[in-house]
Amino acid sequence: MKLTSTPKKDGYYMPSELAPHKCTYLLWPERPDNWRAGAKPAQAAFKMVVETIAKYEPVVLGVNQSQYLHVLGMNMKNVQVVEISNNDSWIRDSGATMVVDGRGGIRAVDWGFNGYGGMTNGIYYPWDFDDYVGAKMANIEGVDRYVPGDFVLEGGSIHSDGEGTLLVTEETLLDEGRNPGKSKEEIEALLREYTGAKKVLWLPYGVYKDEDTNGHVDNICQFVAPGKVVLAWEDDESDPQHERSVKDLEYLESVTDAKDRKLEIVKIHVPSPITITREEAEGVDSVEGTFPRREGDRLPASYINYYNCNGAIILPVFDDPRDNEAIKTLAGLFPDRVIEPIYAREILLGGGNIHCITQQVPRA
Amino acid sequence: MKLTSTPKKDGYYMPSELAPHKCTYLLWPERPDNWRAGAKPAQAAFKMVVETIAKYEPVVLGVNQSQYLHVLGMNMKNVQVVEISNNDSWIRDSGATMVVDGRGGIRAVDWGFNGYGGMTNGIYYPWDFDDYVGAKMANIEGVDRYVPGDFVLEGGSIHSDGEGTLLVTEETLLDEGRNPGKSKEEIEALLREYTGAKKVLWLPYGVYKDEDTNGHVDNICQFVAPGKVVLAWEDDESDPQHERSVKDLEYLESVTDAKDRKLEIVKIHVPSPITITREEAEGVDSVEGTFPRREGDRLPASYINYYNCNGAIILPVFDDPRDNEAIKTLAGLFPDRVIEPIYAREILLGGGNIHCITQQVPRA
Repeated sequence: MKLTSTPKKDGYYMPSELAPHKCTYLLWPERPDNWRAGAKPAQAAFKMVVETIAKYEPVVLGVNQSQYLHVLGMNMKNVQVVEISNNDSWIRDSGATMVVDGRGGIRAVDWGFNGYGGMTNGIYYPWDFDDYVGAKMANIEGVDRYVPGDFVLEGGSIHSDGEGTLLVTEETLLDEGRNPGKSKEEIEALLREYTGAKKVLWLPYGVYKDEDTNGHVDNICQFVAPGKVVLAWEDDESDPQHERSVKDLEYLESVTDAKDRKLEIVKIHVPSPITITREEAEGVDSVEGTFPRREGDRLPASYINYYNCNGAIILPVFDDPRDNEAIKTLAGLFPDRVIEPIYAREILLGGGNIHCITQQVPRA
Repeated sequence: MKLTSTPKKDGYYMPSELAPHKCTYLLWPERPDNWRAGAKPAQAAFKMVVETIAKYEPVVLGVNQSQYLHVLGMNMKNVQVVEISNNDSWIRDSGATMVVDGRGGIRAVDWGFNGYGGMTNGIYYPWDFDDYVGAKMANIEGVDRYVPGDFVLEGGSIHSDGEGTLLVTEETLLDEGRNPGKSKEEIEALLREYTGAKKVLWLPYGVYKDEDTNGHVDNICQFVAPGKVVLAWEDDESDPQHERSVKDLEYLESVTDAKDRKLEIVKIHVPSPITITREEAEGVDSVEGTFPRREGDRLPASYINYYNCNGAIILPVFDDPRDNEAIKTLAGLFPDRVIEPIYAREILLGGGNIHCITQQVPRA
């Protein structure tokens, strides 16, 4: 059922992604104007992500009718294949954010979705199927849902520590294509109302060249515990990423969280710049109105876009010398979790990474 | 997961529809070449069926993407709206038959479906979405499924007493459009294998003019208890229904069930002949290849096509003098169930009735 109240009013809040999950949702990639070679290389990478997560928790995999029988035929263990019509496969952004009340209650927040900027600077058109994904998740789960009116928000643009602090970036949340009529204060008030957060930390920047999402926070910074974050870093001062990371670091050092703690900040260096090859660019069906994937364009590669599932970290790696550094840092931060590196270039080519294609349902 | 064994081998069987349900599935009607006036009158009737069943048990309502937001907006209580692409809304026939092992196990049988006769005498084309409905039900329920190879069967063509006896009609099961290469013996062997039945009772006939289904058993006869059935009856010897009912009665009187019981047979008289009006016929988009709905055509109206949900009988009625007789007979047979009559002409106009548009998931 659609609720007319708000999570805050009802005592619900967004838990940390590190809290125990009931399951993980993904959507199957398909559109040939974003995924090269008929999406087949991306599908192979998604399948690896699905099957890796399914070792740790149940997976619900939403697919368009057109791919249903193909995906069902894979007979993947611990994977429930359901029909969810979608325009693209970024369920972190199109899906529902689940909120809990800490007493066994769980509900969905079904944000507005407009293809990352609507008719102003959206990256594909139409996005109507994606706008329904949150409602469909809520109904498959059988939970009631909050619908924040015309408030547009992608799940990848928020991170919660589960203790009242929300991480966001100004780049995305104040973008003119999302909620052009709303001030920063109004947006913050809506975030508090629908995530139950008491404090919103506004990082200035996302990752360099993360242009399709306008710099989602989930590629630059995430909580590893309350009071502790990892931050995408670049040592090379001549790389445009450097100044972005420095500015975010300065901001994070200057603030406290909802419980008035200073933040501990762990840097994870980004891989060397990754650009689209000619073969990769040529494999994408060029369509006017869809964000282009051009030869030579730099991709927003970052290790921060990993996914926390029960007992594991599903980590994108890039066949880069920095891979091992990221694996070691995370292994040190999470002694009780298995680090599962997955070669994720094919997901990155579509504009996001492992965190962007996953959406958790917390245990109530 | 797809299973390669059979229910019989694994100790699974089809329970009686009267056994407790977990929930009921329906599909939302939409196609304008079968449902008049853009399916709006049928949708109103379906909504009444959905909301009536939802008073007694949870309902899962499958809808095409095109109607998803409309149906979700109805905010129906105890109704889970999920996406299930479909060609038409006869989930009794396109859906899965659930089987149980009596020890907490539940699995799906995902029969082949070919639009009631495939390219030989099917009533619409294509039927590919409907053929997936069983698999989708199984996956939404999260149960494993048996797939009986190329064996075509509609759920409306079988009734189980839950104690080893199956009711079918020769008209449907031996129809040349279903399983043309298979003998009666082969079909019976497959029925036993996939429903766990020990004895199959072959009624010769379905209801007169039930031409689109070729005479499904669920319109002429169903169990009200093991050893006891209701049979659609017609007193008027000049009505073609009379001889059909007599022949079925003679057959039922001549046989015993799987436990070697003689059957007790309760007659329920059909309503007076119902024919399609000009206005009704004109409201249907005429399309070559879809079963026509023509002015003056007689409809296969019968009270036997009722649905047993937890604690209630959802009974089609027709604003006919016989309605009360059917209500009283069923009330006498089911003192512990509420009889819920629903005016069902708009469902009948599409070719079936309440039993045809419902599919139970038994409690494991």
